[in-house]
Amino acid sequence: MLEDLKLEAYEANIALVKHGLINLTFGNASAIDRAKGIFAIKPSGVAYDKLAPSDMVLVDLDGKKVEGALNPSSDTPTHRRLLLAFADIGSVVHTHSSSATAFAQAGRPIPIFGTTHADYFYGSVRVTRKMTPEEIASAYEWETGNVIVECMAGIDPLDHPGMLVNRHAPFTWGKTAAKAVEMAVVVECVADMALMSLQLVPDLAEIEPELLNKHFKRKHGPGAYYGQGKG
Amino acid sequence: MLEDLKLEAYEANIALVKHGLINLTFGNASAIDRAKGIFAIKPSGVAYDKLAPSDMVLVDLDGKKVEGALNPSSDTPTHRRLLLAFADIGSVVHTHSSSATAFAQAGRPIPIFGTTHADYFYGSVRVTRKMTPEEIASAYEWETGNVIVECMAGIDPLDHPGMLVNRHAPFTWGKTAAKAVEMAVVVECVADMALMSLQLVPDLAEIEPELLNKHFKRKHGPGAYYGQGKG
Amino acid sequence: MLEDLKLEAYEANIALVKHGLINLTFGNASAIDRAKGIFAIKPSGVAYDKLAPSDMVLVDLDGKKVEGALNPSSDTPTHRRLLLAFADIGSVVHTHSSSATAFAQAGRPIPIFGTTHADYFYGSVRVTRKMTPEEIASAYEWETGNVIVECMAGIDPLDHPGMLVNRHAPFTWGKTAAKAVEMAVVVECVADMALMSLQLVPDLAEIEPELLNKHFKRKHGPGAYYGQGKG
Amino acid sequence: MLEDLKLEAYEANIALVKHGLINLTFGNASAIDRAKGIFAIKPSGVAYDKLAPSDMVLVDLDGKKVEGALNPSSDTPTHRRLLLAFADIGSVVHTHSSSATAFAQAGRPIPIFGTTHADYFYGSVRVTRKMTPEEIASAYEWETGNVIVECMAGIDPLDHPGMLVNRHAPFTWGKTAAKAVEMAVVVECVADMALMSLQLVPDLAEIEPELLNKHFKRKHGPGAYYGQGKG
Repeated sequence: MLEDLKLEAYEANIALVKHGLINLTFGNASAIDRAKGIFAIKPSGVAYDKLAPSDMVLVDLDGKKVEGALNPSSDTPTHRRLLLAFADIGSVVHTHSSSATAFAQAGRPIPIFGTTHADYFYGSVRVTRKMTPEEIASAYEWETGNVIVECMAGIDPLDHPGMLVNRHAPFTWGKTAAKAVEMAVVVECVADMALMSLQLVPDLAEIEPELLNKHFKRKHGPGAYYGQGKG
Repeated sequence: MLEDLKLEAYEANIALVKHGLINLTFGNASAIDRAKGIFAIKPSGVAYDKLAPSDMVLVDLDGKKVEGALNPSSDTPTHRRLLLAFADIGSVVHTHSSSATAFAQAGRPIPIFGTTHADYFYGSVRVTRKMTPEEIASAYEWETGNVIVECMAGIDPLDHPGMLVNRHAPFTWGKTAAKAVEMAVVVECVADMALMSLQLVPDLAEIEPELLNKHFKRKHGPGAYYGQGKG
Repeated sequence: MLEDLKLEAYEANIALVKHGLINLTFGNASAIDRAKGIFAIKPSGVAYDKLAPSDMVLVDLDGKKVEGALNPSSDTPTHRRLLLAFADIGSVVHTHSSSATAFAQAGRPIPIFGTTHADYFYGSVRVTRKMTPEEIASAYEWETGNVIVECMAGIDPLDHPGMLVNRHAPFTWGKTAAKAVEMAVVVECVADMALMSLQLVPDLAEIEPELLNKHFKRKHGPGAYYGQGKG
Repeated sequence: MLEDLKLEAYEANIALVKHGLINLTFGNASAIDRAKGIFAIKPSGVAYDKLAPSDMVLVDLDGKKVEGALNPSSDTPTHRRLLLAFADIGSVVHTHSSSATAFAQAGRPIPIFGTTHADYFYGSVRVTRKMTPEEIASAYEWETGNVIVECMAGIDPLDHPGMLVNRHAPFTWGKTAAKAVEMAVVVECVADMALMSLQLVPDLAEIEPELLNKHFKRKHGPGAYYGQGKG
C-alpha cells in the first residue's frame, strides 16, 4: 500500500547521499500521507546502496508499524513528534552533515549572515536547549522531537524549516520530501559559509532586517516573484 | 533568433556547475550581442540539469523580454545594469560560491596576497557598501547593479573583473561568457587561499606593488608575454 | 592458503581508498584468523591500483612470514602487537587521513563533542604519549604498538576502537576488517567536525555523560536497539 | 626527437590534474635528458584537456628552443635555473595548489609536524625571501629560480625536494617526473594538515629530531627498509 509515498521517502533518502550529506550511516527521511495519517520512513541501519522503495516502513501517527518487513529508523519517534506538531509539513529529514553538526555540537545557532541563508530561513537556524538526563533516560527519540517543538514555539515551521538538536545534528522539514531534502542542503551550505565568515569577523552581526525581509519574501508568501510563477 | 548567443549563455551556465561554483540553485550567466543591444540570460528558478540552450531568455537593454517562453532570472536587472555601465564587457556571471560568499557576508574585500590573484585582478576583489533600506525596498536587483557600478568608479572593469556585493555574493564579468566564468573560478580560488593565508598571518599585508604589476602585466596589455601570442 | 582471509584484508585496503582516507601511499589493513594465529596484511609500498588479493602477505603472531612473494607492510610489527594485545579484535587499520592526522601531529586527543562520536567511541579518541628516543631507535614499529597498548590500559579496545599515535596518525580496529575500516571513517569524520566545533567554541566541554551513555549503549551491549536486531 | 622524454613530461602534467593540484591553469612539469642537456616542458597557456605529448616543447640548458610548434611555459627559465643548479634532479614541477600556496602567500614555511612530512622531507618546506624590485623587473622567471637556489644553499635538494616561492606558490623536484609530481602531492598534503594542526596548537613545535631521522631514513639512504627492496 501507499507505493507512491514509499517512493517519495525512498527518493529523498537517496537524494541525501547524492548531495553528500550522509556521514557514516546517519541520515533518514520520512514522508507522510496526511489523509491516511501514515508516514513512510527509512528502515534502521540498512546501507543506502542496499535500499529499495519497498524497504520503506509504514508507520501511523500513534507509532504503530502498519507495513514493512524491517524495523523503522530508531529516529522514528522524532519524525512522528514533528509530523504531529507541525500540521503543514509533509516530510522530515535528519542528517549528520559535517558543518551543521559542528554548530550543533558547539550548541550554537547558525547565524544568518547573508542572502543565501535569507532566501530560505526567516532568521538563524536555531539550536535546541540541551536535553535533561530524565529526557535522555526515558523516551529519548520522542523527547528529541519535544525539544525541537519547544524551541519552535511561536514561530512558523515553514519560515524556519529546520533546527539543530544540541550536541546532536540537524533536522529539517518541508511540504514535500524534496523540499525537506533541499532544506538539509541549505543548512549545510549556510553552516559552511558561516564558519568562514566567522573566521573573517568573529563578532559579525546578523543580516539587516530590511535585506532579510526582501530576500525571504522574494521567494515566500503572496509577494513572491522568484521562479516561473503559476500561470 | 540569436541562437549562438543563447548557446554561449547556456554553456557558461553549465560551466558554472562543472566548476563546482553553484550552491543550491544560485548562479546565472548572461551574454550580450552589443550590435543588437540584446542579451541572453538563464531563466529564473530552472534546475541546471533541465536547462537547454533554447530556454535562454533574450532581453534588450531597456529590460524588455525579446524572446523566450520563461521568465528571465530575477537577477536580470543587475546584469542589465552592469552591461549598460561597462561598455567593454560581453558577459556577466553571478554565483554564491562558498569562500567568496563568506567574504561578501563578512563585508570584507578579498585581499590580494599572491601572484595567483595578481594574474587576474589588478588589486583586491572589492566589496560594495551595504545597500540602504530605500534601495532594497525599491528596484532591488537594479540597485544591486548600481552599488557595484558606484564601487567601480574610476577603475577599469577589465582590470577588476569582479566584485562582492555586501551580505550577498560575487558578480564577475569579462569580454566573453567564458572569460566571465573563468573570473568566477578565480574569485572563489583566491578567496579560499586568502582564508588560509589569513589563518596563518591575521594581519598579512597585500602583495608588493612591483610584483602585482609584473604579474598582471605579464598577462594583460601591450607587454603581455604569457600564452601563445598572436602570430 | 587462507584465501578468504586474504580477500578480507584486500577488500579492507581497497575500501580505505574508496572512503578517501588514503593520503599519498599511507594506509594498510590486516585481518587475522585467530584459530590459526595467522594474519593477512598489505605488502609494503605497493600502489593500491596494482593490488590483488593474492598480493596479501600472510604472517604469524611471532612475526614470521608464512606465505607471500612480497615484503609485508613496514607497519606489520604494529599490527602484530595490537593483534596480540587485544584478543577480541580481528583486524587493524592504519591511515594518515588528514583531519585525524592533524590531531595526532598536534598531540591532542579528538574530544567527544556530540552523538556522532558517541555512537562509536565511549569517550575521546585518545592520543599516545610521545615515543622515547630509545623506542624510536630500537624496534620502532613494534614500540609504536606498545605505546598504543600502554595508552589503552584499563579500557576495553572495543569501547575505544582506535587511537592516535602522537606525531604520527590514527590506528583503528574492530571484530572484522570491515568494522576496522568503518572506525577509520569515524575517526576522520569526528576529527573534521571537532576542528570546526573548536573554531566556534575553543574551550568547548565534552558531551554530557548521560548522552554519551545513551548513544553508545543504543548501539552496543545487551540493551542495544539500533538496526534490525537478531531475529 | 626525444619522444620518451616528451611523454614523461606530458604524463607528469596530466598527473597534476588527476591529483587535484591544478587551480585555474597554473601548473607545469618538465623532464630532462641529462646526456643531451635538453628538457621537455609544457607549452604556455594551453588547456590541460587539449594537451598531447607532441605539444611538449624541447628546450636546451641555454634556454634555446630545440623543437616544438608552441611557446614553452612562461616559467621555463625557472625550470632551467633549477635543472642547472641541482645536478641530481631529473624534473621540476610547479603548481598553485591551494594550501601550499596559502603558506607561500603568507611567507611562512610549512613546519614539519609529523611523520607524514618526515617520510619525504628532511625538515620544513622552506619559503624563499621576497624578490627585490630589481629581480622582478629584470629576468623575473630566471630570478625566481635564483631565489630558490639561494635558499637551498648548503642543503641537498633531494633531502628537501621542494620549496615555496614567497608570495607565489610551490616548486618541487625529483629524480624523475613521477617523483617530482609525488612531491607536489606531498607538499599540498602536509600544508593542509599543518593548517589544521596550527588551528589546534598555534605554537606547535616541530617534530623531534629522533623521529624525523627515523622516518626520513626509513625511506632514504643506505638503511632504507620501506617497500620491496632491490632483490
